Order: sequence, then C-alpha cells, then structure tokens
Amino acid sequence: MVHLTTALDAASAVPLYEQLYKSLADEMRAGTLAAGTRMPGKRRLAAELSVSVNTVDAAYQLLAAEGYLESRERSGFYVQEYLALPQRTEPEMQAAAPVQPPEPKDTPVQFDLSTRGVDPGLFPFRTWARLQKELLYSSPELLTHGDAQGDIELRQALAEYLEEYRGVRCGADQIVVGAGLEYLLGLLAPLLPGTAAVENPGYPRARQVLANNGVSCCCLPVDEGGLSIEALYRSGAAVCYVTPSHQFPTGVTMPAGRRAELLRWASRQPGQRYIIEDDYDSEFRFDTRPLPSLQGMAGADGPVVYLSTCSRSLAPSIRIAYMVLPRHLLPAWQRTYRLYSSPVGRFEQQTLARFITEGYFTRHLARERVAYKARRDALAKALTGAFGPGELKLMGLHTGLHLLAKLADPPADAALRAAAAQAGMQFSLLSDFDLTGSRQEKCGTLVLGYGSLADDACPLVGETLKRVCTAAREASSGR
Amino acid sequence: MVHLTTALDAASAVPLYEQLYKSLADEMRAGTLAAGTRMPGKRRLAAELSVSVNTVDAAYQLLAAEGYLESRERSGFYVQEYLALPQRTEPEMQAAAPVQPPEPKDTPVQFDLSTRGVDPGLFPFRTWARLQKELLYSSPELLTHGDAQGDIELRQALAEYLEEYRGVRCGADQIVVGAGLEYLLGLLAPLLPGTAAVENPGYPRARQVLANNGVSCCCLPVDEGGLSIEALYRSGAAVCYVTPSHQFPTGVTMPAGRRAELLRWASRQPGQRYIIEDDYDSEFRFDTRPLPSLQGMAGADGPVVYLSTCSRSLAPSIRIAYMVLPRHLLPAWQRTYRLYSSPVGRFEQQTLARFITEGYFTRHLARERVAYKARRDALAKALTGAFGPGELKLMGLHTGLHLLAKLADPPADAALRAAAAQAGMQFSLLSDFDLTGSRQEKCGTLVLGYGSLADDACPLVGETLKRVCTAAREASSGR
Repeated sequence: MVHLTTALDAASAVPLYEQLYKSLADEMRAGTLAAGTRMPGKRRLAAELSVSVNTVDAAYQLLAAEGYLESRERSGFYVQEYLALPQRTEPEMQAAAPVQPPEPKDTPVQFDLSTRGVDPGLFPFRTWARLQKELLYSSPELLTHGDAQGDIELRQALAEYLEEYRGVRCGADQIVVGAGLEYLLGLLAPLLPGTAAVENPGYPRARQVLANNGVSCCCLPVDEGGLSIEALYRSGAAVCYVTPSHQFPTGVTMPAGRRAELLRWASRQPGQRYIIEDDYDSEFRFDTRPLPSLQGMAGADGPVVYLSTCSRSLAPSIRIAYMVLPRHLLPAWQRTYRLYSSPVGRFEQQTLARFITEGYFTRHLARERVAYKARRDALAKALTGAFGPGELKLMGLHTGLHLLAKLADPPADAALRAAAAQAGMQFSLLSDFDLTGSRQEKCGTLVLGYGSLADDACPLVGETLKRVCTAAREASSGR
Repeated sequence: MVHLTTALDAASAVPLYEQLYKSLADEMRAGTLAAGTRMPGKRRLAAELSVSVNTVDAAYQLLAAEGYLESRERSGFYVQEYLALPQRTEPEMQAAAPVQPPEPKDTPVQFDLSTRGVDPGLFPFRTWARLQKELLYSSPELLTHGDAQGDIELRQALAEYLEEYRGVRCGADQIVVGAGLEYLLGLLAPLLPGTAAVENPGYPRARQVLANNGVSCCCLPVDEGGLSIEALYRSGAAVCYVTPSHQFPTGVTMPAGRRAELLRWASRQPGQRYIIEDDYDSEFRFDTRPLPSLQGMAGADGPVVYLSTCSRSLAPSIRIAYMVLPRHLLPAWQRTYRLYSSPVGRFEQQTLARFITEGYFTRHLARERVAYKARRDALAKALTGAFGPGELKLMGLHTGLHLLAKLADPPADAALRAAAAQAGMQFSLLSDFDLTGSRQEKCGTLVLGYGSLADDACPLVGETLKRVCTAAREASSGR
C-alpha cells in the first residue's frame, strides 16, 4: 500500500494528478518507494485516495514519461531506478558555498542621466510578442543549428535596411550577426593588421575589447570635426575605430570633407589599413538629414568595417548587433570561424527579421525619433531655464540620446560627483571618457543621457542640476 | 486638395486608416506633399474620400507620431521635413552589390546522423512560450542593461540545479552566462596560464576557439578511461580541456580513479594549472547513475572551470551556455571584463531561470532521457539486426546522443563517405575528430548521432547503413 507523505488537496490550484505525481516522484527519489516495487492498480489507488481513476492514470503516465515508472504489459507499473542524480561516491564532499545575495545597490537613483539608457515605454511589446509567438509555434526548424554568420533572412533584411537608410553597400553574405559589440569586435580583432587608433575622449568599452583581444590601441584627439586625421597619419596606426555619425561622447558629426580624408588615409595602403565605423545612434538624428555611412562612400569592398547594434533602437537587453565586412575579408573570416555557431538565438533573429521586413522597424524608429526629439527639447529648455545666461552651454544636441552641458565656472569633479550622488542624480563627466586616464580635476562638461528620462521629469532635472552645481561649488571652494 | 496616388480599398484586410496613413506617408517621402504644406481639415478630407472622420483622425495621429506631420494648435496639421533618409551628397555612389542567395544545400539528407542534432519534438514549446510571453508583458525592466555575468535569478537557479544534479560546488557569483561555448571559452582564454592539452580524438570546435584566442594546444591520446594522465604530465601543458562525463567523440566516461589523478595533476601547481571540464551531454546518462562533476570533487575554489550548455538539453538555437569559475579567478575576470555586457538577451535568461526554478527543466530532462534511451535502444537493435554477428561492434552507448559503430572489415573512408552521400545518409567517422590531422585511410569506426533521428526510421537506418557499407566495400576493392 502506498502511503502519501503529502496529503492531496482538492482545493488547491494545482491539479490533483500533478499533486499525486509530485508526491510519488518525491518518494521514489527518496527511496521510500524502492526500485522494483510494483505499483498498486489504478482503481485500487483511486479508491484508497478517494480520487478518480483518471487522476491516478494521468499521474502514472507522467511518471512513466519521466522515467520513474516502467509499464509492463498486462502486469502494471513498476518503480524504476531513477538515474538523474549523480552517484555520491566521493568521500568528503565539501559543503556547497552559500549562494551569494546580489550586490547591494547604490543609493537610489532618482534621475538616471547615464548614456546607455533607453525608454522601455517605446518598446513595441505587442508586435514583438506576436511575432515571437508566431515563430515559436510555426517554425520548429528554428530549434536546429543556424548559420554561423546569422540567419540569412535577417542578414537580407539588414542589408536592405542598411542600404536604404544608411547608404551601406553590401550583400547579405558580408553581414555577421553577433551578440553585441564585444562579441563582434572580439572576433574581428585577430583579422586586423596592427595597432588601432581610437578617439579620445572616446568609448571605453571598444578600447577594452580591442585591448583584451591583443590589439594595442593609441588614443587620438577629437576636435569639432571629429577625429584628427593629421594625428592619425602621425600615429602609424593600421586600424581606426571611429564614430562618425555621432562621436562618442562629444556628439560631433564628422563632416563630409573629413570623411573623404579618412577614407583617403585608408585607401593609401589597401588591405593594410582599416576603418571600423561604429554607427551607433545614427537612427536618432533630429534636425538635419543624416550623412550616409562611411562604408557606403567606400563601397562593398572598401576598407571600412561597418558596425551597429539594436541596443539603442530596440533595447539594451535585446542582444543583436551586426557588422558588415569588406568582401575581401570574407575568406579569412570563414576560415577562422568555420566551426563557430552564431551567438544569437534563432527565434530572436527571425523575430527581428520579420520586424524589419514587415515595416515595423522603420515605423518604430520614426516614433522613437519624435519622442526623443521632444524629450531633448524639454531637457534643453529645462536646463537653459534653470541656469542663468552664460552659465551653461549646451552642445551635441542634434543626434543621439545624450547632450553635453559645459559649465562656465566649474567646481571640482569630485565635488560635483558627491553632490550629484546626494541628490540622487546619475550622470557622467566628459573626463570619464578620457581614455588616456589623464583626468583634469575640473572638467566642467556634463554628459547627460536622456534615453531613460521621463518627459515630465525634465523641469525637475534642470532645477536639481542647478542645485547640484551650486552645492558642489560651495563644497569645492571650502565654504 | 490631396490627391491620393493609391485608392483606398474598403474591402481590404488592411484597415482604412492604415491605407490612408501609408498613402500619405509615401507622398510625403516622395515630396508630392511638400514640407510646410497645411493638410486639409479632417472633416473635409473625410468627405472627399468618403471615409469617416475617425479614419482620417487615426491616420493623422499616426503620421504625427512618426514625425511626418506636426500639429499646430488651432491651425491643424502641417507636413514636416522627413529626416529618416540619409542625404545623398556623394557624387558617384557605387551600385549596391546584389544580395547573395543562400548557398545551395547538399543533396537532400534523408537520415541525419550528425552528432549535433536534437529532437525538436521534445522542445517544451507551450511552457517556453507561456513563460516568455508572461515575462515580456510583466517585466519591462528586463529591457534595460543586465549584469555582465548574467542575470542573478538565472545564475542562482543554475547554481542550485548544478549542485543538486551535477554535484557542482559554487555560488551564483562564480557563474558566467554566455552565448555558447565559443563566447565563454574565448573570454576565458586570456586568463589561462599557458599551453592547453586537448583530447584526441576530440572536439574540433573547442580547439579552434582556444587557438583563435592565442592559446596553443597540444593533442593527447584518449584510451578506454579517457585522457591519458601520463601523457598530460609529459606534455608540459598548463591547461587541460576534458569531457569526462562523455568523452567527445569516443563516449568514454572517465572513471573515478582517473578523475582523482587528473585533479592531483592540477593541484600540484595551484594557480598555475587548470582543468576545463566540458560537461556536455551529461544530462543523458541512461544506464547507470552519473558521476558527480570534477568541479564538485575539487570544490568551489579548486582548479576546475566547469562549462556546460543548453544546446543539447533544450535546443541548439537557444544560445545559453554557462561556466563556473574558481573563486580566485573572479577578480581577474571582473577586471578584464568590467565594461562588457552579457551576450544573452535578458528575456531568454529569465525564461530559462523560471523554467528551472518552477521545476520544468528537470522534468523536461527526465522526458528527454526516456525518449532518447528508447531511440538508442531502437537504433542499436536495428544495427545489430542488419549486420551479421561480428561484423559490427557498438560502443559508447551509455551516455549522450550518439554511439560508435566499429566495422570489422572496413572499406576506405572515402568510399564510405561517397556511398553514404549517395544513400542520403549523413554521419561522421571517428577519424574526422583526429585533431592532429593524421587521418587513417581506413578508420572503420562510425560516429552515429541519433538526436534528430525519428524513432520509426531506425530499422531503415540499419538496413541502409548495411547497404552503404557493402557498396563502399565493393567500390573500395575496385569491383
């Protein structure tokens, strides 16, 4: 006779057969119901437990499907030896280390003006969920291994989108889909011919990825036209990592003339010099038409590797980035990464492919542009309203999801940081992006991201920032 | 007056406001409706087009949300300059390279016996889709940046699962979630102290990833107890990459004694020698209880990096793998990858976390074990039935999703491959996994994966394989 250690509860939301299954499985794992035991007949057990025969039958079937019971013809169900758990033969197992609780968070941030936030409210939840669900049910073949460069449907959709909206010239065969900048830049690194020049101030992550993958980096200055081409020639670098659409973090757009100079630098030594064009944020140009990509100026087999991501246009947690390789790099790529799999799940790839080809992506981007432009305007208005004339100069407004605010009479960075933390405000200073590490003590230029800012919080942000600056100035001057 | 280039179609499945939106947007992009134009009032346009005022209103609102129209108070809607397209100032743009069609597939494969297939029919579509949808609607915070090592909920779930089922000793802080072996092994490589020993025959991908990341590899022989420890000592390697649960591809399980020897090798030079334990396929042990992991024998701060993946237990296209680092490697890890983001989407991470913590994962694995064990039995029965006694020896049956079949009188490999291709059969030979590249001409051992094989196809696979061998032998002997 089977004694259930846990009584069945007809009032529970968990179906009775599930409760019975669980109770029996527990006993088999614990050994109370030993391997080889013949289970009571369904009718008998049903009567004993005052449940229906169907309940017992469903529980037995579940136990058989999971390997707890074996059904022998005309003889009934027998308890199997359950093999899931490892054999604990080792003499003295060390006690498991306690699971660490998550790190305690900093003091609560009321105003997040960091540069990597986006507005979750703009995410196309309904369309994304519908496409995702349709694919999961209709396309079981997407469970199998996909193409190492990414699913062809996504690469084709990206090639068409990039051609139309960014002037990129490429075939789907030149596109590599990857799980973020780190992954793609990490794979690209071994194929690069030498030292890389990076912009300074610049994007610390790109530099870290290059350095981690054995590419030594030199930092070149940025002026109001972007990276200095003169410095690039002097540096002797073979690779140039640039953000021409929206220099990170200064927000400068490289003008057409400088772009042509940059391409000339690369084309002087074909196959020996490359430009990595990180086109992040180019979707968010508010006041003038965007310039086409450098890659498009250079052509499908030019010296430019084009790189972009959906982190900003969709969400940071949707890990899909992509890279366009010059055609002549494809053989080396395929040789080196012949055995690799794509790091991006195929359901996500196909969801994005449909999102693009069915027209949702460009409409989503259009909506985002309108929303972010309005927010930029609100923030700029709040800042100029809160500070006196001449106290603050705004820069880098025309593109992307952050702007720069230069203080006329800046307090020390440390005082500014302390005052901001106390006011529950999070932002970066331009000096945080000095990749040479030579920090000025008084930087005076704030980098204010508004991606994740609420529209109606803008006036308060202006006032709070003014208070933060005043407090920092007082602390700074020792009052 | 607005002239629509496309007539509205009341009978279409596309709502009228969508049709009107599209038609007007097209004209604004084409310039037919120029920037600055004042749009007709809603009532007037509705009357002109014989549609309701609501239809016109919905279309105008959509156009405003996407930046085509600007609404001015008490004055109506005005056409904006639409800024999405890049300014095409470059003199001679090169024509876009044609999109390449996907590579033509090989002749159709009727029987896929490759080692990386799994059965899509076992994937828990309904549960996965439900969890995914719930998360998408209930947790918009998952759109933001997550932890670089992976979401804490998933790492905690994995730590508990691994402790219970694989005897792994770790805290969630030691786990790194990544998008596949390539990604994790690639990040691990720079932290390793020197040359890596790999098993031979072995897993070509792991070797390629290590080599691509600057780790030189030496190939050590495998016997019936797994990797030779004697050869490991002689090699001078500092790192040892092993598959002790189910040596790939031979299927050998490393016995407890050899495991202890391997750990002794590493512990002789603490911090200078590491074991990478790739525990792939350990979920699929059919006949005896699995041994606990090497990592568990060594403890949370031992010399073992534990590595596993959901490619086999869930699906190859769900790109979630994970790694357990020894505690003393964590500072170096965090220093090196401080600025990185996790490559796995957070919705997928959280879907898996719930799938594990709500008990679905272990039940799913139990079902898979039952199904794959039955398939292994069917394939083994079909093979021994089709071949005469002594003609074929089966090996590596007890774990994983492939088995080895050694032919007593093997034809040449090339003939075997040609005959298999002609019969629409795909499988590997043991010599394909010889990482030294020194291929024997007559290997005679087939590696037969049954993950993606249909149960009822097994008898036909046996017969076809027998015919393939006969045909290859005839071709081989020149008849």
